[in-house]
Amino acid sequence: MRAVVFDGSLRFDPDRAMPAPGDNELLVRVTTCGICNTDLEIIKGYGGFAGVPGHEFCGIVESAGPLQGKRVVGEINLGCGKCLMCDNGLQNHCPERTVLGIVGKDGAMADYLTLPLENLHPIPDPVSDEEAVFVEPLAAAMQVVEQVKPRPDDRVLVMGDGKLGLLCAMALGLSCQEVTLSGKHPGKMEIARTHGIHAVHKDGLNEAFDLVVEATGAEGGLAEALRWVRPRGTVVLKSTVAEQSRLHLFPVVVNEVTIVGSRCGPFPRAIDALAERSIDVGSLISARYPVEDALAAFACAAAKETLKVILKF
Amino acid sequence: MRAVVFDGSLRFDPDRAMPAPGDNELLVRVTTCGICNTDLEIIKGYGGFAGVPGHEFCGIVESAGPLQGKRVVGEINLGCGKCLMCDNGLQNHCPERTVLGIVGKDGAMADYLTLPLENLHPIPDPVSDEEAVFVEPLAAAMQVVEQVKPRPDDRVLVMGDGKLGLLCAMALGLSCQEVTLSGKHPGKMEIARTHGIHAVHKDGLNEAFDLVVEATGAEGGLAEALRWVRPRGTVVLKSTVAEQSRLHLFPVVVNEVTIVGSRCGPFPRAIDALAERSIDVGSLISARYPVEDALAAFACAAAKETLKVILKF
Repeated sequence: MRAVVFDGSLRFDPDRAMPAPGDNELLVRVTTCGICNTDLEIIKGYGGFAGVPGHEFCGIVESAGPLQGKRVVGEINLGCGKCLMCDNGLQNHCPERTVLGIVGKDGAMADYLTLPLENLHPIPDPVSDEEAVFVEPLAAAMQVVEQVKPRPDDRVLVMGDGKLGLLCAMALGLSCQEVTLSGKHPGKMEIARTHGIHAVHKDGLNEAFDLVVEATGAEGGLAEALRWVRPRGTVVLKSTVAEQSRLHLFPVVVNEVTIVGSRCGPFPRAIDALAERSIDVGSLISARYPVEDALAAFACAAAKETLKVILKF
Repeated sequence: MRAVVFDGSLRFDPDRAMPAPGDNELLVRVTTCGICNTDLEIIKGYGGFAGVPGHEFCGIVESAGPLQGKRVVGEINLGCGKCLMCDNGLQNHCPERTVLGIVGKDGAMADYLTLPLENLHPIPDPVSDEEAVFVEPLAAAMQVVEQVKPRPDDRVLVMGDGKLGLLCAMALGLSCQEVTLSGKHPGKMEIARTHGIHAVHKDGLNEAFDLVVEATGAEGGLAEALRWVRPRGTVVLKSTVAEQSRLHLFPVVVNEVTIVGSRCGPFPRAIDALAERSIDVGSLISARYPVEDALAAFACAAAKETLKVILKF
């Protein structure tokens, strides 16, 4: 099968062996796969992953059973099924978990992947394959709302005009009347504005917010977020930054700020939001490449003004 | 009046001018004042304070009115009374606030101090002056319970065997069955054990906790707390550390940890806990000094195995 492979360097492999479904796993033929910032980190060596990257996908189930022939997306964490976390429905936090295309399991930048039945979610007709690629990152964005449960009149700041920042701002816009996005890329901020988001340059902020979502991906993101959150306010940390951060923690204590780490989120709500067209992700697609041109696609994804890059199979 | 004064160096002043009560302020004659870690930081130059330090006190109201002659303790934050924070009852977070003995207002290490009526709380008879000195730090410890609302079966770790750590462990022991305190001072850990707290050396931890309270006062405290909190668990940050911290933030995101900054707390509950003898603070007093010997008292307070040092007037 065709596959994108990272093993210290990134390459396209036209003839990689098919993955073999494990117990309770189904074989899925990938039709579409997104490139995420985590993928860009992986090919810098983050996390020591080797194999097929890719975790934002849409595909068609090939294995026999109730899902055969259905279009699906997939939750990316696979718990051990035996530990305290898995017993409590927190497979996402199983210490022995593998993660599709991220930790110990080949991912979606290939003609085929395997995932357990319980990880797969059928995609309704109104949602295209390309839109379905956004289910995973949109779920991660909607997790902010799940965790923090903001009030409609909360003043919200999303820091970062990348894909995750834009999706967080859109998701929060479903619950809150006043969402500001701070960024530094004119094109991305313009896209935010087409979605009704108040987008400002990050150097132009001048008020305190009840809720600040840190999605800059930058080492100094939390220190900056602490500047803009009001006393007793909440900072949601979405960026996974490989480097050490340096910051003063006493403002967290003195201002009694709450910091909430936030990662993966609820797939069903993200699928519903796309199906109902309450979130429109089409404008976030910057480019499409055939899988054979994966290296060019990664180079495009790493450019400053690029949002989502899609690989087509 | 007699006073301890810090203006770059610490000294005892036998003849300082009396403070003049401002609008709505009462004159309080101090009988007892504790030395807190914040005071030790202040005399290193933290926060740039100059004047009379001291914010943990018991005294007798001298001004005419309903409190005249009563023994009182006092909340230490004085809001501007005009801003959004003050309007919402959050004087503790007023950006223009002064703080007794910490920010812009002479404190309690003197024969007299002044505070507004609304900051003062009468102390019931069963609580001695020395015990009353603990109302402020005990309130700060009880704030953890107020903010986090732990469940009785939560596994709780308090990191740090100083005064604040011990008070936090005691306060959490009122709500939770299983409280572990990690420290490194044998004498302090032994005191914890006399209060029924499971005290272990900080290098002897080997399990994950639902709730970790960081009260080490050390720069690396949060990084260490993130090692011991379970995924989706909570870290309460109590230490105010002047230096920058260096730490990896990705475990906060990946493990979806919540970090709660926690500072001052509810005086009435702390007074009730002392009056009901549900918290016994007597064993935390390491030494008593007359105010004239304040420099020796500060030296004693800075020693490793010392807990609370009390100044007597």
